[in-house]
Amino acid sequence: MTGPCLDFSSDNVTQVAPEIMAAIVEANQGTAHGYGNDPWTEKLTACARDVFECDLAIYPVATGTAANALALAELAAPHCGIYCHESAHIQRDECGAPELFTGGAKLLAVPTADGRLAPQDLVAIQEAAAVRGVHCVKPAVISMSQATEWGTVYTPDQVRALAEFGRAHDLRLHMDGARFANAVAHLGCTAAEASWKLGVDVLSFGATKNGAMGAEAVIFFNRERAQAFEYRRKRGAQLFSKMRFVSAQLLAALQDGLWLRHGRHANAMASRLAQGLQALPGVRLMHEVQANELFVSMPEEAIEALLQDGYSFYRWPAQPGTKTRIIRLVTAWSTREADVDGFLAAAGRHLAGKKVAAF
Amino acid sequence: MTGPCLDFSSDNVTQVAPEIMAAIVEANQGTAHGYGNDPWTEKLTACARDVFECDLAIYPVATGTAANALALAELAAPHCGIYCHESAHIQRDECGAPELFTGGAKLLAVPTADGRLAPQDLVAIQEAAAVRGVHCVKPAVISMSQATEWGTVYTPDQVRALAEFGRAHDLRLHMDGARFANAVAHLGCTAAEASWKLGVDVLSFGATKNGAMGAEAVIFFNRERAQAFEYRRKRGAQLFSKMRFVSAQLLAALQDGLWLRHGRHANAMASRLAQGLQALPGVRLMHEVQANELFVSMPEEAIEALLQDGYSFYRWPAQPGTKTRIIRLVTAWSTREADVDGFLAAAGRHLAGKKVAAF
Amino acid sequence: MTGPCLDFSSDNVTQVAPEIMAAIVEANQGTAHGYGNDPWTEKLTACARDVFECDLAIYPVATGTAANALALAELAAPHCGIYCHESAHIQRDECGAPELFTGGAKLLAVPTADGRLAPQDLVAIQEAAAVRGVHCVKPAVISMSQATEWGTVYTPDQVRALAEFGRAHDLRLHMDGARFANAVAHLGCTAAEASWKLGVDVLSFGATKNGAMGAEAVIFFNRERAQAFEYRRKRGAQLFSKMRFVSAQLLAALQDGLWLRHGRHANAMASRLAQGLQALPGVRLMHEVQANELFVSMPEEAIEALLQDGYSFYRWPAQPGTKTRIIRLVTAWSTREADVDGFLAAAGRHLAGKKVAAF
Amino acid sequence: MTGPCLDFSSDNVTQVAPEIMAAIVEANQGTAHGYGNDPWTEKLTACARDVFECDLAIYPVATGTAANALALAELAAPHCGIYCHESAHIQRDECGAPELFTGGAKLLAVPTADGRLAPQDLVAIQEAAAVRGVHCVKPAVISMSQATEWGTVYTPDQVRALAEFGRAHDLRLHMDGARFANAVAHLGCTAAEASWKLGVDVLSFGATKNGAMGAEAVIFFNRERAQAFEYRRKRGAQLFSKMRFVSAQLLAALQDGLWLRHGRHANAMASRLAQGLQALPGVRLMHEVQANELFVSMPEEAIEALLQDGYSFYRWPAQPGTKTRIIRLVTAWSTREADVDGFLAAAGRHLAGKKVAAF
Repeated sequence: MTGPCLDFSSDNVTQVAPEIMAAIVEANQGTAHGYGNDPWTEKLTACARDVFECDLAIYPVATGTAANALALAELAAPHCGIYCHESAHIQRDECGAPELFTGGAKLLAVPTADGRLAPQDLVAIQEAAAVRGVHCVKPAVISMSQATEWGTVYTPDQVRALAEFGRAHDLRLHMDGARFANAVAHLGCTAAEASWKLGVDVLSFGATKNGAMGAEAVIFFNRERAQAFEYRRKRGAQLFSKMRFVSAQLLAALQDGLWLRHGRHANAMASRLAQGLQALPGVRLMHEVQANELFVSMPEEAIEALLQDGYSFYRWPAQPGTKTRIIRLVTAWSTREADVDGFLAAAGRHLAGKKVAAF
Repeated sequence: MTGPCLDFSSDNVTQVAPEIMAAIVEANQGTAHGYGNDPWTEKLTACARDVFECDLAIYPVATGTAANALALAELAAPHCGIYCHESAHIQRDECGAPELFTGGAKLLAVPTADGRLAPQDLVAIQEAAAVRGVHCVKPAVISMSQATEWGTVYTPDQVRALAEFGRAHDLRLHMDGARFANAVAHLGCTAAEASWKLGVDVLSFGATKNGAMGAEAVIFFNRERAQAFEYRRKRGAQLFSKMRFVSAQLLAALQDGLWLRHGRHANAMASRLAQGLQALPGVRLMHEVQANELFVSMPEEAIEALLQDGYSFYRWPAQPGTKTRIIRLVTAWSTREADVDGFLAAAGRHLAGKKVAAF
Repeated sequence: MTGPCLDFSSDNVTQVAPEIMAAIVEANQGTAHGYGNDPWTEKLTACARDVFECDLAIYPVATGTAANALALAELAAPHCGIYCHESAHIQRDECGAPELFTGGAKLLAVPTADGRLAPQDLVAIQEAAAVRGVHCVKPAVISMSQATEWGTVYTPDQVRALAEFGRAHDLRLHMDGARFANAVAHLGCTAAEASWKLGVDVLSFGATKNGAMGAEAVIFFNRERAQAFEYRRKRGAQLFSKMRFVSAQLLAALQDGLWLRHGRHANAMASRLAQGLQALPGVRLMHEVQANELFVSMPEEAIEALLQDGYSFYRWPAQPGTKTRIIRLVTAWSTREADVDGFLAAAGRHLAGKKVAAF
Repeated sequence: MTGPCLDFSSDNVTQVAPEIMAAIVEANQGTAHGYGNDPWTEKLTACARDVFECDLAIYPVATGTAANALALAELAAPHCGIYCHESAHIQRDECGAPELFTGGAKLLAVPTADGRLAPQDLVAIQEAAAVRGVHCVKPAVISMSQATEWGTVYTPDQVRALAEFGRAHDLRLHMDGARFANAVAHLGCTAAEASWKLGVDVLSFGATKNGAMGAEAVIFFNRERAQAFEYRRKRGAQLFSKMRFVSAQLLAALQDGLWLRHGRHANAMASRLAQGLQALPGVRLMHEVQANELFVSMPEEAIEALLQDGYSFYRWPAQPGTKTRIIRLVTAWSTREADVDGFLAAAGRHLAGKKVAAF
């Protein structure tokens, strides 16, 4: 065991999990047909169908941005609109990739208080779009992030409500599941119960943050909906000649429940961290901790001292006009209890004697 | 040593070279900042500058299509045209990726007899474009493949002539170097002498076909020319969170000349295959074999018999109106002399007693 | 004189002004070279340079959407962002045309209380973009509407402040001047004083709403900034073969100050309408009336009665959660005092005895 | 009557026909709802259905480029390919507009000897596309020009053969009818017999070259095929607020057969010109004259002398390697017999004593 890990900046700074690295090495046998015509990719499809209990189509891609942008391109024509939360990765963190891959479809970013979308957030804009016709884009998709960008998780009822609203208005439901494993771990349900059984049409299934090297997948639960997807993936420069090495990662993640064990572990570490932080003076959790991200306000002096200690994390924008300092802490499949406890001990030292912050 | 390899279908069906797999495993140490802010990516830049003797910028991407399409997007605005050979990968094998990433720039595909572009092939179309102004796209780039799609290699003078024509007409020179290693190995020159010293502005440097797992790079020899490239790469879904694993592959390929040894070996195997085939009755090489691809005409019965033996290769379209049957054979870094000799022996058996084909 | 005009729905429902129709008929002499190589287009450029006192480039197009989308395409690369007010025409009324013509640049829509953008509205998002680098689009343009979508007009100082903020952050300033004439009429300044002298880089100059048949223009005050514009216009399907008939309209509008007289007249009619409405019980003007649009709240019964009378106008969305009913009334170059007085008399009848609405 | 017209450069240099100008002036009555919700547009649809004997949808746009690019965008998704002749307007004269409006679909330009496409020209490329799958674009459309760019006209059987090939391969048939009137006039059939009865799915119906001011139309013979077209037209900046003035032009052209009389007249003038030229020494017609364009080779001295006389026409690229000089002469609805005879007389003078050119 190596020394303590001080890096809580993201779950994408982590190593490749040993089971997944082993699968990559194992896939390096002889020649294999390119572009997905290989046994690993075939097994991946079979395995994903088992895990999701569904006759789905699964397409490996290299990045979460690729998964989201290609999924949306298949669901939304260029003259269409895509509902999303204003904090969504597709809206704030992908540098316009959805606009590129869709050919200029418009993200209709909706602000909400809790980071989740609900039908009532969309009613007015949907009605306006219907009235205004060709003068504004035609809404075609609801894209939701599960877990959300704020580390919270939609309940099954909340997802189902969005899907029903979607069906009533001819909107497909896309789930950005960069942290799907964390969400399913929190919900304690099956992969199917967290996705298509609730009405999700397409899932961006994340593996990279969860122990893979570089592997995400676009999953269409209704294969009919993916008619042009293989062309789009190729044209989107995401069809790998040596596909087996990407498929092998996803297969290793999905087989034997590794993805879910990783999700549960990361969540457990986040809970441990949250519980410890809540006990410290001057600290406040900005959102309920349901997955593996914590948004924490604490005094600037403590933040600086933690950075001095060598800890790594991002600062987050606070509400305009407030003096609150917010940091984001992310746990991962590889975070150990000792790493968490080390952070808590350090934070405890720096916060000792502080008063509880008033908001 | 495993059994003989019967797969001559492409250099992308091969394994990952052991040095490169070792580098991937080696990179799996502790946490590392994402998106290229890691030591492997930093070392890659330093190493590429050494290898190319140039203060270049190098950007890892996942596929050759991504390298080409993103490079062209940086060089050609949407209202521009890109000269290429009608057999170019960007024209025939990328499903419109250049059109997607450039925002609709137009490939101006030029047929030539020998698979190479030369200034005289472009003069008339360039003059017409100048005369016609806004009624047709504005040519902005010459994209050449080195080695070409037909397994031939431009001489340094041929490249230089294209670059000079380009400079005279405000055209940038892009080199699709999916098989750059094979070309340099054939030319017997340095990487610099095969690229920027001849006037190449941007190189798509291929590693996947040459022993990597999934790693290509876009190299701008003049860093000023890459102003928006990092935005484009992110937006193009090719900025990897765990970049170190892609950079490590490229670093392993470039360090200690592995890329060039691989290129030389693949070429040598192609030469051995060519020499053997030329000695057989009824066989004809369609193009000079200068890199690692052979286009071979032979009687249909022999082709069928080789396929029956378990050999793998692609058929290639013959000239319309002819009865010639053409197959493509590709050697790679991993092809062994025994593999070649096995193929030659089998072909010899099937061709025994054939007359020399008349064309 | 025909009967009273009951149509206050938009300034785009009006006739072509007689001077402009005469110019169209007058242009129908003999043959003329196509695509703008004609005397009318030449004179238009000379005339626009006089009116704006500037060595500008002016490009006729067919619609306001074309003017905006093409102007933005020239200013913003596909990986860029464009600041605008959330009520901007480019954001709400053009069905994604800016996204199409720019190749997917992202509109960064900012809500503000008064319908105008100010530097302080952009500071936080601009700083965030600088920090986040390639993970979000690169802001490149501020697009403002003058007059605004709410019928208000930026003061010269407000425009100058935006331009200065832009210069400090490498942002170009685009003015959507679909109702530029109304704004200049309100400001009582020259065309130059309302545009480039304040730092505006590119103006969408509207004529259709102001008496033309179908003619708008994109004006680059610095011709160097329009390098690719002519290609973009052609490629954007806005280069007319019989250009003279579009140029003649713009020429007639700009010559002898017709455009400004029209703007003044429409504004005067809006003022007259505003004054009359303010005197009526139960009526409230939602915004200051500075150009030719009025947003008016009044009791639903009165609205219904006016519609019964045959009046034409649009309903406007009220603030969510309120019961206020809002209508938009638009005056034009062709609105007569009698038309206004007729509306006021009708409204007066329907509102007689109403109490003043409480908000 | 004015003096002789010396301008044979294009049919787009002509005036607006008096009937069409009268219709524009006539449409300038009172207010009218914008964006096509006006009586003129309604009548246009009814009239077009009469003329084409079909329950079609007709959409006015401003330019032929807009008509083609928007039609193709509706028929071809971004990952698709569009077959066309290498001389097609969409391929050579629209500066990439189809690529812009389709979001990067690829034109598959096919050379043929006579300027027309035939199924046999497409068989090999269609088969290759089927075999290669996602590695190349998916052919979705055949776009043919009727009349062709070389002034020839497809026979009904030739059109039908293309349509049948299309149906067999899931390809829609688009007809670029910038000179549809000339083609129908040549064929001596009805509009229906020249279009949907032969299997044409969508027609770009040209009026501008045929006497309109600036009006083209996209006609979908099967309205189900135009599902997103209205959004695309708006987003493509081709939805006019004062639509009545564009619709009125098309209505005037279609009513009472004006379009066809114009087409017949222009063709007759072209025939007269062709007959006269053929009688002159040293002159050769490069293609059969079936519509209103002539491609004529003649000695350089005569060309120069005609230009000296004040005649206007374009030079055309000759076959590389030949010394032939080629000019294009275009007649129009407004060309008079005296104009033709004047040209013939002048040419006769300059060619007197010349020998017949040897080819």
